[in-house]
Amino acid sequence: MQRAIRIIGIDPGLRRTGWGVIEAIGNSLRFVASGTVRSDEKAALAARLCQLHDGLVDVMRRHEPEEAAVENTFVNRDASATLKLGQARGVAMLVPALGGLAVAEYAPNAVKKAVIGVGKGEKGQIVMMVKVLMPKATFDTDDAADALAIAICHAHHRQSVQGRLAAAVAG
Amino acid sequence: MQRAIRIIGIDPGLRRTGWGVIEAIGNSLRFVASGTVRSDEKAALAARLCQLHDGLVDVMRRHEPEEAAVENTFVNRDASATLKLGQARGVAMLVPALGGLAVAEYAPNAVKKAVIGVGKGEKGQIVMMVKVLMPKATFDTDDAADALAIAICHAHHRQSVQGRLAAAVAG
Repeated sequence: MQRAIRIIGIDPGLRRTGWGVIEAIGNSLRFVASGTVRSDEKAALAARLCQLHDGLVDVMRRHEPEEAAVENTFVNRDASATLKLGQARGVAMLVPALGGLAVAEYAPNAVKKAVIGVGKGEKGQIVMMVKVLMPKATFDTDDAADALAIAICHAHHRQSVQGRLAAAVAG
Repeated sequence: MQRAIRIIGIDPGLRRTGWGVIEAIGNSLRFVASGTVRSDEKAALAARLCQLHDGLVDVMRRHEPEEAAVENTFVNRDASATLKLGQARGVAMLVPALGGLAVAEYAPNAVKKAVIGVGKGEKGQIVMMVKVLMPKATFDTDDAADALAIAICHAHHRQSVQGRLAAAVAG
């Protein structure tokens, strides 16, 4: 019997960082929990980064994921927004890495392909397909749904890598 | 007699993060230490962020600064470079903030003005003026010299703020 692997997906943002924890057992996926860590827009930047840090540390403690995944964000807005996103993303990757987890990165079209089946799609489609793939999933924001999609993407990819490894060993 | 305040300036970068610690006693500045935290370019991004984190935590432990300052970077390269800088900057601000320090941000022209006297100047001028302002200062990279300049800028600004506060109280 295959062991369940617990995966956290993170969709970083300075205002809202979505997270989603799932379990992958072979081909099947199980929803564990999801949510959104918020930072206070009126606080100083360093304080906001602490809020994201503390929120994610709390999620890691409560749900004890074994592997982490984030989206390798494409940046299409202005430099100031990109810098803000980068700062949040730095903290979002640091927290699981300091906890000893490998942090995989996936391009947005890989995440879309994993949940929608094609590399392009509307934001609403991701939310809908997360619900189709894991009917028991609940999420308070689109960011949490996106984080679950990132975790699902990692579950698919890690398995295909393991499948290839197993085939190589067997062969 | 005025108490010495220990300030750390940080010039964040994913490859190299410069840091410089000084003491400000009234108008006079004393060099304490400076250096450069490097990350391994061949490592995964999350591992590199951990290296920056661990290096800065070590600096904080060894030199025990009471206030921190970083440059509020202007971004002028491509989005990918801006995202990288943001990630390093997120970690560089998080470390002192988690240690309970206030983290001040200064625009590049404020830093230049504090050490050169004007808001514009070549990179070499900053290095030169750091040496003039603190003859005992040593630094292994331009990033460490820039970090010292940021700390000097904060020493000037925090004092003028305190001067204004004292004047307001006295008045």
